[in-house]
Amino acid sequence: MSPPIPKPEEEHPSLPTVLIHRLPSFRYTLTSHLEPHFHLVDPLTTAAAATDSARALLCVGPTPVNEGTLNLYPSVRLVVGTSAGLDHVDLAACARRGVAVTSAANAFTEDVADFAVALLIDVLRRVSAGDRFVRRGLWPVQGDYPLGFKLGGKRVGILGLGNIGSEVAKRLVAFGCSVAYNSRSKKPSVPFPYYENAHDLAANSDALVVCCALNDQTRHVVNKDVMTALGKEGVIVNVGRGALIDEEELVRFLVAGELRGAGLDVFENEPNVPKQLFELDNVVLSPHKAVLTPESFRALQDVVFANLEAFFSNKPLVSPVECH
Amino acid sequence: MSPPIPKPEEEHPSLPTVLIHRLPSFRYTLTSHLEPHFHLVDPLTTAAAATDSARALLCVGPTPVNEGTLNLYPSVRLVVGTSAGLDHVDLAACARRGVAVTSAANAFTEDVADFAVALLIDVLRRVSAGDRFVRRGLWPVQGDYPLGFKLGGKRVGILGLGNIGSEVAKRLVAFGCSVAYNSRSKKPSVPFPYYENAHDLAANSDALVVCCALNDQTRHVVNKDVMTALGKEGVIVNVGRGALIDEEELVRFLVAGELRGAGLDVFENEPNVPKQLFELDNVVLSPHKAVLTPESFRALQDVVFANLEAFFSNKPLVSPVECH
Repeated sequence: MSPPIPKPEEEHPSLPTVLIHRLPSFRYTLTSHLEPHFHLVDPLTTAAAATDSARALLCVGPTPVNEGTLNLYPSVRLVVGTSAGLDHVDLAACARRGVAVTSAANAFTEDVADFAVALLIDVLRRVSAGDRFVRRGLWPVQGDYPLGFKLGGKRVGILGLGNIGSEVAKRLVAFGCSVAYNSRSKKPSVPFPYYENAHDLAANSDALVVCCALNDQTRHVVNKDVMTALGKEGVIVNVGRGALIDEEELVRFLVAGELRGAGLDVFENEPNVPKQLFELDNVVLSPHKAVLTPESFRALQDVVFANLEAFFSNKPLVSPVECH
Repeated sequence: MSPPIPKPEEEHPSLPTVLIHRLPSFRYTLTSHLEPHFHLVDPLTTAAAATDSARALLCVGPTPVNEGTLNLYPSVRLVVGTSAGLDHVDLAACARRGVAVTSAANAFTEDVADFAVALLIDVLRRVSAGDRFVRRGLWPVQGDYPLGFKLGGKRVGILGLGNIGSEVAKRLVAFGCSVAYNSRSKKPSVPFPYYENAHDLAANSDALVVCCALNDQTRHVVNKDVMTALGKEGVIVNVGRGALIDEEELVRFLVAGELRGAGLDVFENEPNVPKQLFELDNVVLSPHKAVLTPESFRALQDVVFANLEAFFSNKPLVSPVECH
């Protein structure tokens, strides 16, 4: 008789087990710093038995965590999120079962804010479009390139003034923009004008930067009415989630020239981007990469490690998410 | 006998004459606000006689003003520049003849600074390259897009801390960059570290933003040694003049991967851009349009009008340039 195949956790009797939870198409590259401290088990590549007693689950990117996931791993008491938004995690289901959830905290905040500002300047000043113009060899042939618009002096409405929105505001102030915002509620310590809803914010803005969380209240928060209120000279930047905007309407507005332009890092049906946008010079398209820099990944590694270590030492979590 | 053709200035006996000085390929679009106040004469379209007594010359864009120009219009005592840089005006020749020169002052400052920051984020975060990736339909096919780099925390060296450089610095501070500079001399009121030459600045920077004036001292100020000092992870942004950089060396460094990337609004031989750059994903190319917004043009119209009005009323000029 051959000896029984050892269960992976028996090879690391002293290390707490952490399950890697991912869609098969997702690679994970941020676990090397965890390996000396935790016993990492990827159920996609390891025998199921190893998952029985695991108490923590490391969720790679936007891999869904729902009732089914929690049924599969009944001993799990912590879900460690690794993305800026957690709309893929059923927070209510986690709350019902007493499962804590942690977020990426501020690991991505600055990168997303930088990218939002980059998209806004790019649309206004036609940076990507100018690059296309030069690369196609049109400069010596056509000479004049259409004028862009100045960023300074623009009224920018920020939809969702959380960590990311606040960093966007800080940057735009340095460019001489005037900032206003809409959020779940007015923030007493914030100097910018508050509008009670997206429509009123849009009606008083030259550009909207969408960076709120996606949930049942914010799905399609930028709808036809909001776009109409923003107007023909308005610009929309989205670094939140695709479904915050009614994409079909957005495409219609852009194609009809009912908006000045858009800078989009996220889409409703990623990685599919509406083909009509490919023809437009006044949109800047980005493959959901507002968060992706090595510097952000290092910050994320730190916050993931800190949450796992706190959990297994019974200390307060570093970046817990409120579960309703 | 037919009556003599009236000289244009006789049609406007009460208005001071201003000559429009331009290359035939340049159009001028900012004179409508001047027409009620000045008698505008374009020698390219009007009888030469009209130019005899003109005392002011409005120089369109980078049209050269040299000894020949001043010989042609000996009565001119004011050259009104309309561009951010005045390297096309022979300031020494103007000084010798007692001809005053005015600049566009700060009309373009903020737009150029915005554009410099836009180019820097674009190179680091690959905005234009990401837009190409999406438009080519590669996102659903290739999935992962290469990581960019974070702007915050980068050491940015500003070459030329005049009006534009100072506005660039203000913006970069809001992004969490640390700023240093080189200028003709150390500026006592500036909080940023000063380096005595471009080489030392580059050796202590992750990115160089080139925004100094072009003159005999600054031609090719960014040469091979400076690029070597900046290093393989270094980024160069140029919103000044093409000839501030040794373009041939720059292309060689970029093609060989000896620099991380470059964002270029200006080139040595515009509108010709070195073709090798078209193949590179880590450069952002722009058709010398860092200054071009309607908002800038309105500011320029104001400063042009203010200088002409001051000149013809014997008041101090609004934006005189020092002529050596």
